[in-house]
Amino acid sequence: MDYVNGPGRNHLFVPGPVNIPDQVIRAMNRNNEDYRSPAVPALTKILLEDVKKIFKTTSGTPFLIPTTGTGAWESALTNTLSPGDRTVSFLIGQFSLLWIDQQQRLGFNVDVVESDWGQGANLDILASKIAADTTHSIKAICIVHNETATGVTNNLATVRNILDHYQHPALFLVDGVSSICALDFRMDEWGIDVALTGSQKALSLPTGMGIVCASPKALEATKTAKSVRVFFDWNDYLKFYKMGTYWPYTPSIQLLYGLRAALDLIFEEGLDNVVARHSRLGKATRLAVEAWGLKNCTQKEEWVSDTVTAVVVPSYIDSSDIVRRAWKRYNLSLGLGLNKVAGKVFRIGHLGNLNELQLLGCLAGVEMVLKDVGYPVKLGSGVAAASGYLQNSTPLIPSRI
Amino acid sequence: MDYVNGPGRNHLFVPGPVNIPDQVIRAMNRNNEDYRSPAVPALTKILLEDVKKIFKTTSGTPFLIPTTGTGAWESALTNTLSPGDRTVSFLIGQFSLLWIDQQQRLGFNVDVVESDWGQGANLDILASKIAADTTHSIKAICIVHNETATGVTNNLATVRNILDHYQHPALFLVDGVSSICALDFRMDEWGIDVALTGSQKALSLPTGMGIVCASPKALEATKTAKSVRVFFDWNDYLKFYKMGTYWPYTPSIQLLYGLRAALDLIFEEGLDNVVARHSRLGKATRLAVEAWGLKNCTQKEEWVSDTVTAVVVPSYIDSSDIVRRAWKRYNLSLGLGLNKVAGKVFRIGHLGNLNELQLLGCLAGVEMVLKDVGYPVKLGSGVAAASGYLQNSTPLIPSRI
Amino acid sequence: MDYVNGPGRNHLFVPGPVNIPDQVIRAMNRNNEDYRSPAVPALTKILLEDVKKIFKTTSGTPFLIPTTGTGAWESALTNTLSPGDRTVSFLIGQFSLLWIDQQQRLGFNVDVVESDWGQGANLDILASKIAADTTHSIKAICIVHNETATGVTNNLATVRNILDHYQHPALFLVDGVSSICALDFRMDEWGIDVALTGSQKALSLPTGMGIVCASPKALEATKTAKSVRVFFDWNDYLKFYKMGTYWPYTPSIQLLYGLRAALDLIFEEGLDNVVARHSRLGKATRLAVEAWGLKNCTQKEEWVSDTVTAVVVPSYIDSSDIVRRAWKRYNLSLGLGLNKVAGKVFRIGHLGNLNELQLLGCLAGVEMVLKDVGYPVKLGSGVAAASGYLQNSTPLIPSRI
Amino acid sequence: MDYVNGPGRNHLFVPGPVNIPDQVIRAMNRNNEDYRSPAVPALTKILLEDVKKIFKTTSGTPFLIPTTGTGAWESALTNTLSPGDRTVSFLIGQFSLLWIDQQQRLGFNVDVVESDWGQGANLDILASKIAADTTHSIKAICIVHNETATGVTNNLATVRNILDHYQHPALFLVDGVSSICALDFRMDEWGIDVALTGSQKALSLPTGMGIVCASPKALEATKTAKSVRVFFDWNDYLKFYKMGTYWPYTPSIQLLYGLRAALDLIFEEGLDNVVARHSRLGKATRLAVEAWGLKNCTQKEEWVSDTVTAVVVPSYIDSSDIVRRAWKRYNLSLGLGLNKVAGKVFRIGHLGNLNELQLLGCLAGVEMVLKDVGYPVKLGSGVAAASGYLQNSTPLIPSRI
Repeated sequence: MDYVNGPGRNHLFVPGPVNIPDQVIRAMNRNNEDYRSPAVPALTKILLEDVKKIFKTTSGTPFLIPTTGTGAWESALTNTLSPGDRTVSFLIGQFSLLWIDQQQRLGFNVDVVESDWGQGANLDILASKIAADTTHSIKAICIVHNETATGVTNNLATVRNILDHYQHPALFLVDGVSSICALDFRMDEWGIDVALTGSQKALSLPTGMGIVCASPKALEATKTAKSVRVFFDWNDYLKFYKMGTYWPYTPSIQLLYGLRAALDLIFEEGLDNVVARHSRLGKATRLAVEAWGLKNCTQKEEWVSDTVTAVVVPSYIDSSDIVRRAWKRYNLSLGLGLNKVAGKVFRIGHLGNLNELQLLGCLAGVEMVLKDVGYPVKLGSGVAAASGYLQNSTPLIPSRI
Repeated sequence: MDYVNGPGRNHLFVPGPVNIPDQVIRAMNRNNEDYRSPAVPALTKILLEDVKKIFKTTSGTPFLIPTTGTGAWESALTNTLSPGDRTVSFLIGQFSLLWIDQQQRLGFNVDVVESDWGQGANLDILASKIAADTTHSIKAICIVHNETATGVTNNLATVRNILDHYQHPALFLVDGVSSICALDFRMDEWGIDVALTGSQKALSLPTGMGIVCASPKALEATKTAKSVRVFFDWNDYLKFYKMGTYWPYTPSIQLLYGLRAALDLIFEEGLDNVVARHSRLGKATRLAVEAWGLKNCTQKEEWVSDTVTAVVVPSYIDSSDIVRRAWKRYNLSLGLGLNKVAGKVFRIGHLGNLNELQLLGCLAGVEMVLKDVGYPVKLGSGVAAASGYLQNSTPLIPSRI
Repeated sequence: MDYVNGPGRNHLFVPGPVNIPDQVIRAMNRNNEDYRSPAVPALTKILLEDVKKIFKTTSGTPFLIPTTGTGAWESALTNTLSPGDRTVSFLIGQFSLLWIDQQQRLGFNVDVVESDWGQGANLDILASKIAADTTHSIKAICIVHNETATGVTNNLATVRNILDHYQHPALFLVDGVSSICALDFRMDEWGIDVALTGSQKALSLPTGMGIVCASPKALEATKTAKSVRVFFDWNDYLKFYKMGTYWPYTPSIQLLYGLRAALDLIFEEGLDNVVARHSRLGKATRLAVEAWGLKNCTQKEEWVSDTVTAVVVPSYIDSSDIVRRAWKRYNLSLGLGLNKVAGKVFRIGHLGNLNELQLLGCLAGVEMVLKDVGYPVKLGSGVAAASGYLQNSTPLIPSRI
Repeated sequence: MDYVNGPGRNHLFVPGPVNIPDQVIRAMNRNNEDYRSPAVPALTKILLEDVKKIFKTTSGTPFLIPTTGTGAWESALTNTLSPGDRTVSFLIGQFSLLWIDQQQRLGFNVDVVESDWGQGANLDILASKIAADTTHSIKAICIVHNETATGVTNNLATVRNILDHYQHPALFLVDGVSSICALDFRMDEWGIDVALTGSQKALSLPTGMGIVCASPKALEATKTAKSVRVFFDWNDYLKFYKMGTYWPYTPSIQLLYGLRAALDLIFEEGLDNVVARHSRLGKATRLAVEAWGLKNCTQKEEWVSDTVTAVVVPSYIDSSDIVRRAWKRYNLSLGLGLNKVAGKVFRIGHLGNLNELQLLGCLAGVEMVLKDVGYPVKLGSGVAAASGYLQNSTPLIPSRI
């Protein structure tokens, strides 16, 4: 069934789906169960409490939806907004583009703020729009925390500050797909109204669970939101939450147990340590890129992403060749450049349950591929830059001290 | 992580999610993969061809959607219909009720044909409505092939005959959630326009994949269908089918390999043999119910279901006690009575990758539970009735002859 | 890789290897580890403490040997005895025969006490031999607690009483392969010097770990035992126990984690409850056999086994046909008759992590097979006899109350 | 159950047990089976044929013994020799030492040829002993193909040449534990009489299967070999081979399916390609060691090992600190120095189902650890030396071309 075995383990460095830790694979290695027995609601109840911790929220209400990130987006939008509502959305890469496309197709009046791919959301423009919107025609700010296509992280605290400064009541909807559980994320502190992620990203699970968390204000908004929704309707969940049976339709038993194991690992490591580890791996990757003499697609330090690095290749190289060759020769999976940056960048995903040596193996592989395609890289240069930093900053594994 | 271990194996006889064969559990026991590598599209391409076989269609186009049956319903409806469209729908149990509820919430004009719970869809009324609808105001017939709440199987061939007889162009949308891969199902022959199932039913996979198959006429209907849809939009799939990359958003790698293994098992056994096995297990269950002196919720022989049997309990017994006790004492999972038949029936699901002895163990368990709750059953009577039939009808396992 | 798939789950009722619970399969689903890291000794240390509980010993020293029951026998004998030593051994079936054969090939002077197959060890003869042996020429009593070929359980307390009565110093070596973790077993109370089992029996693990436990007297005996041994030499273990690294050669990492999970399940259920469950399943099986009008190979009630029942078939039936047909038609695995009782008995193993409904499914299957091969069984009769008893005696599952 | 979780995947670079490929873990993820059904013998029959290929023998007879390498040694010796027999054995490291110790404890007259640890077997001395032994008092040459403690590979062809030159009839017994399936190994061509390996080495399985292959001459020798043996007696296997049931005692079902999967992977890659891959990884490792300015424990190029490299550390460093720190800080498992070289060397195992990037990740980790413990390594230097070679020599993965 594996048509394309290679010797050894695949180095999976696409920015999702990411490596699943063995503990999680084990936890999911099971038969189905009756989800109406007392066991599954008991498990779910605790999961719903615990999953709030990865959003850093105590007041939010989480929904574990059998869907992908795309479905989680739709859930966030349709439960809180009505067709014709004005949203402000930032086009800075492929995933923000797709979300904007969804917003348009769902019938919202999308006020698009575009930046060059490689730049962050232009929050100055946001500020001016908010300032100007004295009639509160803007119903929601929709922003991707971390644009996976370009490796750009936006500053969510600033968004909140702008809204607060102008006492603007717009909902604050955040795609945290490639950030939550990896980057610093504070739903309550930053006043986020809907935050969402997908199981296959930093949570390091298989694809199939969209995790959406709604603030009390977002829940209130559902009462007036006129967008048509059934499968994604939070009210169906809330009804079953009240009954204590939790599920309006059949959940994946395996993903529930997997989520339990994934959260256990994250809490054992400590969420702040998890974020610090991503910061370490992100920095190490950027140092390698610099040592190779290549450019990060991210144009300013303030936007660099600790979960994905998009590396710009020289114009005489097609970045797709790099991705293809990495897979064909070294069993290394890298991310393609998408849309506007197709052929121009390749991406290294460094998120999820990952450690220093896995990353260094990847970086050593990238070096060889770069040489393969004719880029005059000094082999070992990126690894040295990265390991120089990591050797100084990596802590002992707490459970092994 | 298993708060409620019991010794030995759980006898899982709810009508979904059902038992996953070990071969499928094994196939899914794996890390994530880059779904943009050449391997996943190659796997997907073959899966899309092979999955058509379980619908018995050659002209249909299948979609493997990361969702549940509820999402699959929504996909079928929103891609083919427009708000305000008139549908004829049959209310005969909890799942047809939920689908009707969805149709109403999606804004269709639902012409509900209600029957007693335990009866099949009233196709005489359908015939008269179709006959009367000379203006073709009816845009779709929505019917649940097998109502899981009551164990009622509807006759799809008759629906087609009615439409053909009056040359009525209504779309023919079928929920095959608890029938496809278990009951005789012929998408092409019966002129079904959209058929759908969920992975956790007779395919014997985990929950998480809605499988929807659209006829050419259904695909044509998408062009005029005005229902708002993004996540469920078939056109996004078709676009990626054309590109040969297949996935508009991240699929579950594990479910893809699981589907491959599930189909392999089904094809090795032979789809017709699979259907015959379900027929055998269904008949055996009904013989046991009869031997116990209890009634099948299904009111007529023509509607009996080979995938689920809803057993009516005497009025002095609460069927929920049976379900609860089966789980607490015998590690047996039975289905609750739902809505109108709550407390009045319990359900035995006998679908998926299941054999005779598993069913007989379940039936022996039901007998003990019946006695536990005060019903004067003769222990062994149901098992004897069932095994008398099975001992005559069970073929040798072909691979072991 | 499974050349012989049948639909549904195999009913595995051979008396070993037995069904592995899902929790254990999950725990073993893992990569190798460095067994010289601090983690494996830490795990081993606790396992060695915990495994003593299944022997009911506090003074014994356990050895987890990468071998089978045959190797565990050899370990017990060669570490405590010298070539030419006189042992008293009881020939009552195939496994005691094989152990005697091993004792002879290892050069001991084996004093064989033979009984009809179906009878227990003749302890009257033992008593007279012990009484007569005033010179203490008998160095060891070797006895199989439960003869797996005939379903005969010997009374170990009586053996101890005889030795004590005559103050005889012979070592008391016990094969507990098909008893430990299933039957009442008390190493310390019964003064057993070496007790042993195999992982694939009542512990419900894969084959591959011989578990041997030595009393202080047995350890003392190693100092004078002249049997040649290296792989099986306990002293190599003891040396590594002292160093705290535990392993003289590479253990199976998977079996260690599997053992951890298996013990957790046993302790959660309660060892005495586990024994009670086996007693319940054994009694139920015997009631079924009686209802079928067939004879138990075990000739007296005092010897009946709660882990395996050997069923005598009428002379006009070849019991191998029953076993073959069970597997070919019903996916039911039964034990063959061995050696003297080949063709005359088939065996139902009812040990390990097993519950009532699994057994009833098996019994229903046996009934159908009996009918298949021409035995005039009343279908349902055995199931009724068994479930009549089980319905009265099965407790609620404690974790689900 | 995992007391010592670290984030990310353990880099397992001890020279055994080694990394198990996911395909094999999957194949082993299963319940027990009746090993007396037709399925297991059918599987075994093909395995016995196929396993001969990894020895490069057509005339040999393989035995799959539920034991470890230590047991496999004992099997090789006791089946072919008698107490008092003279063997010539080479003491060149910890594992040859342990084998010699076993030979002595089994009562052979061991003629030990000792070399410095780091040197290969002194075959000149062998030649003179053979030349002098005109009475053929030497019954067997026992040699470790690859001494895992020092990373030394002996030249087996030369041993054969010496025996042939003097027409000496001594048996040629080879420990191929850390060579077979990784180094060039030719049982028939080199006239090896018994060759053996363990499942947890280059076959990349869990521990628990000793694989021993006997030449016709070795089988002939069993007839006169007087060493006491029961568990390890080949004749018990041969008896069951003849009957077609194959197993004198219970095999591990899981390891059988695991072996099937492991062989499939090896044959798919091609055994010669597997050997070439090991050669590549071995060379790359040695280049790294050289770049670090450290010495290989192996004293001459002719003896270098492609499966394990023992790296000598400066006298001011305790190599155990390196191993400890690698595990505690970087989740990297390296091999300790053993016995004479304890504290002086650490070992990098590079055998089994392993690829270039995994090795480079390990090497990058070693560099950081070296710096941690105060050795002035230039970070990246070893990786650069290794990847410079690998980038030139690594072929495309055939299944992905």
